[in-house]
Amino acid sequence: MSNVEDKISAARGDRRASLLLKNAKLVNVISGEIYPADVAIYGDTIVGMGRYEAEEEMDVGGKFLCPGFMDAHVHIESSMVTPPEYARAVVPRGTTSVIIDPHEIANVMGLDGIVLMAGMAENIPLTAYVMLPSCVPATEMETSGARLDARDLEGLREKEWVLGLGEVMNFPGVIGCMPDMLRKIEMVCGKPINGHAPGLGGKDLAAYIIAGIRSDHECTSAEEAREKLRNGMAILIREGSMAKNLEDLIPLVTSENARRFLFASDDRHPDDLVEEGHLDYILRKSVRLGVRPITAIQMATINVAEVYGLRNVGAVAPGFRADLVVLDDLDSFIVHSVIKGGRLVAQGGEVLPGIISPKGVEVRNTMKVRPISPEVITIKAQGRLAKIIEIVPGQLVTRAVVDRITIRDGRAEANPKQDILKVAVFERHTASGNIGLGFVRGFGIKGGAIGSSVAHDAHNIIVIGDNDVDMARAASQIAEMGGGLVIAQRGEVVGALELPIAGLMSDRDIGHVVDHLKLMRKLGRDMGCRLGDPFMALSFLSLPVIPELRVTDRGLVNVGQFRIVPLFGE
Amino acid sequence: MSNVEDKISAARGDRRASLLLKNAKLVNVISGEIYPADVAIYGDTIVGMGRYEAEEEMDVGGKFLCPGFMDAHVHIESSMVTPPEYARAVVPRGTTSVIIDPHEIANVMGLDGIVLMAGMAENIPLTAYVMLPSCVPATEMETSGARLDARDLEGLREKEWVLGLGEVMNFPGVIGCMPDMLRKIEMVCGKPINGHAPGLGGKDLAAYIIAGIRSDHECTSAEEAREKLRNGMAILIREGSMAKNLEDLIPLVTSENARRFLFASDDRHPDDLVEEGHLDYILRKSVRLGVRPITAIQMATINVAEVYGLRNVGAVAPGFRADLVVLDDLDSFIVHSVIKGGRLVAQGGEVLPGIISPKGVEVRNTMKVRPISPEVITIKAQGRLAKIIEIVPGQLVTRAVVDRITIRDGRAEANPKQDILKVAVFERHTASGNIGLGFVRGFGIKGGAIGSSVAHDAHNIIVIGDNDVDMARAASQIAEMGGGLVIAQRGEVVGALELPIAGLMSDRDIGHVVDHLKLMRKLGRDMGCRLGDPFMALSFLSLPVIPELRVTDRGLVNVGQFRIVPLFGE
Repeated sequence: MSNVEDKISAARGDRRASLLLKNAKLVNVISGEIYPADVAIYGDTIVGMGRYEAEEEMDVGGKFLCPGFMDAHVHIESSMVTPPEYARAVVPRGTTSVIIDPHEIANVMGLDGIVLMAGMAENIPLTAYVMLPSCVPATEMETSGARLDARDLEGLREKEWVLGLGEVMNFPGVIGCMPDMLRKIEMVCGKPINGHAPGLGGKDLAAYIIAGIRSDHECTSAEEAREKLRNGMAILIREGSMAKNLEDLIPLVTSENARRFLFASDDRHPDDLVEEGHLDYILRKSVRLGVRPITAIQMATINVAEVYGLRNVGAVAPGFRADLVVLDDLDSFIVHSVIKGGRLVAQGGEVLPGIISPKGVEVRNTMKVRPISPEVITIKAQGRLAKIIEIVPGQLVTRAVVDRITIRDGRAEANPKQDILKVAVFERHTASGNIGLGFVRGFGIKGGAIGSSVAHDAHNIIVIGDNDVDMARAASQIAEMGGGLVIAQRGEVVGALELPIAGLMSDRDIGHVVDHLKLMRKLGRDMGCRLGDPFMALSFLSLPVIPELRVTDRGLVNVGQFRIVPLFGE
Repeated sequence: MSNVEDKISAARGDRRASLLLKNAKLVNVISGEIYPADVAIYGDTIVGMGRYEAEEEMDVGGKFLCPGFMDAHVHIESSMVTPPEYARAVVPRGTTSVIIDPHEIANVMGLDGIVLMAGMAENIPLTAYVMLPSCVPATEMETSGARLDARDLEGLREKEWVLGLGEVMNFPGVIGCMPDMLRKIEMVCGKPINGHAPGLGGKDLAAYIIAGIRSDHECTSAEEAREKLRNGMAILIREGSMAKNLEDLIPLVTSENARRFLFASDDRHPDDLVEEGHLDYILRKSVRLGVRPITAIQMATINVAEVYGLRNVGAVAPGFRADLVVLDDLDSFIVHSVIKGGRLVAQGGEVLPGIISPKGVEVRNTMKVRPISPEVITIKAQGRLAKIIEIVPGQLVTRAVVDRITIRDGRAEANPKQDILKVAVFERHTASGNIGLGFVRGFGIKGGAIGSSVAHDAHNIIVIGDNDVDMARAASQIAEMGGGLVIAQRGEVVGALELPIAGLMSDRDIGHVVDHLKLMRKLGRDMGCRLGDPFMALSFLSLPVIPELRVTDRGLVNVGQFRIVPLFGE
């Protein structure tokens, strides 16, 4: 870090700049203009525009020079890789800052998980600002690995990497004035707070906002977003792997309100990051949808900085951190090179050698599971009719249907011919032996089981299958690996991706993860799976906050009634 | 103050709102829209839009409802009245917040002056956010009443009314890395800092900005503002009584950069406030110049809040302070009524009875002056040619001219026939006896003297006249009154406006001040004065930071050379 005197001296030209970017078309998100300029950098800071002497010069060759892109809300865990590997994927796509909410790892490892994520994000060419997870656990209807109250979070509040409070999913807690919820909000004392209020409107929305929550990333329609915007919220337009809201929300953006819109990927799969990209993908799509390039770039840079109160990032101007992206054009948004903190870190789609050090992560097994055998997942029939979770392809919501169930020797069983599979959720944080059981329709697999330790939000082990032997095998394998994705057939594990970091992330490189994911998906298709990604669908089967029917380690959850319901009967 | 639980409960409609504004056309500066709405207020806070039960209802009758206007930079002292009387003038015009820099009173009274201003601004229907004066004294070429270094200002930093650091005029100190200057900047730790950098550009501008100064209100041309904007500065468009930059800067505003522009009145005379208005006047003029009303209103509200990091003012949305303006239309910007902190405070151009309590101000005489007589301002001739300060009508700059001077009995004297008057500046903070003497052209008065204790920035006593008797009489009277404006003729005081608060502000109401100012100007015209306001011209004659020639208690200042120069010779 250079001190202010050195920077002033470099800005005046009395001291040589470190790097001069010559011959750029500067995308100035502050003045809203694009014009030719040279940009001088001293250390990690932009010091001036114009002719400067510098130790090193880089000819940008008339290409566009933008501020580095910023993701306004992301769970890195959803990409199943560590922050360094995440950086390896997104930095060459132009992302230089991410606002992360380590909500997933916190549900497994509590405060340790948050600290672990922040630690892994050190010394990588990507700044990760951490929002403290506000809702661990998300509900009382599942067993998670941790419970974080306001007092717990207070211990981290002053860490330099903490930016604010993560998405407040517990809206009934907020508007019902639940003391611990309000205390969490009060605790961050005016720092940014992320909202998460799908479908909330009217007076409940006003109450939620008045508590201090001024942003939301859950809008799925322009009407919903309009109401939130009118009530003072910044709108984080989410465009993730699963939830895609860009096309629906973009029509709301006008010259007079564009500054209130940011982009967020929320949850993005590793293969989508590698193949489609990150914010470059969102920018490309936005411009195709008719947004002016300068406006779209503002949404991915300075708007994020301003909404989060980050003074020195998100623009190309003296005093700003030299996080820069060189683009071939403003249509394809193909990233030519990326400068992070004044240093060239990526070019031609790749992070440069030596930029991300292959330091190991200390992996701590987080699996505490009672022994698993086919017998423990036997379902004793208590009627002919049972509630079945029906997958809605391409959506997070499920349907609750009631159907006749196959009964053999007093046991309720899967019936793959009718695409009725069994689902089991094994509690894996405390070895309580809790197992939630049910039936699911929509996967379409036959002759095996598919399991995962990525299961929002408590991340217990979830397995589906048409026979108990393969299901138990898959679950045991996941427990043994310390977490991961597994496919079992005929009593054998036929495919596996280890996710030993909290059962959520691989300790390998992103290429390894992508290759294995693809292989596993192919195995799934070979078993007859009709879903593009069975693991994705699996990961949301447990999430008891999205309608209609879910299953956790405590049993079947009717989300509308917000309670555990019996499996049998209507 | 209500707590957050009560506000949440009011937002949900579980608790009755205090006030419901019905049937408004809401100017929503966040969504950039204007649409019909009802607005509910609880205590001092907006809690929701829509149908609410309330203790009191107010039918807005389809008029426009805006956030209260915010002045981004103003010296209240320039209006010659106390903050309560200032509020009496501007609140009925729609202003509900001002960012004040008590630079003038601080030059007279130091920290006590700052505290006095903040104290006077308590319990008035106008929120005054205080920027700590950064440059007291402005230069070493005059004697001021105080000297504030970083350590002095630190003592006030944590006061709840302090918002940041006031205009940093000492740009050579900044880019020359003067330790105390940098320490003042560092001291405010990322809080807002106002710039003051007339004409600064290129690398010096970059150096000034990199020190941490991200705004400026001294741009006089679009080109100057464009460079500052491109370098990351917020542009405070100044439209004061003297300096008027609106027309020149407005063409720079576009949809993509409008959020970077704010309005500032800087220095505004009491009669202009009363007769033309305040931000309502600037808004009216902006819209006439072609700015869209919603954009102009954003510049006077939410943009100010955002640049200064004020979370809860500047918009009409849940959680924002209920500072509201009801407007008849968005052309004339005639203010129908004003609500401050949830309370109706002004209507039909007048503050409501009882809103501003007529509390007295404890006046402390700040005049420490050696006895003044005609003899002490004798100028002993030291040559035929002398430097003369020539007024440029309507501008702050003066010209330095050299001309033959009338000499009688070895004394250089005024020659009213050629409009060469004498000027004298009497040091009045320490009774040092310092007197700066010179000649001035452009006032045009005959047969008397005009004097003032408002004399930027040190606010010594300045007098011009065509004879020493009247000059001494005027100066003595000012000293005796504890400050003010005086006109003397034939050895008698013929007009006076007392400004006993630091020699800058009246302790009377604004009507009294306006009436007396007008009377004094008429007396000036009767003496032949060719300037619209001789006191205005007088108040800038001492300011040693604006070209070309000035006079302080230490003598004649050549601003270009930034030094004291002899009166006689070329």
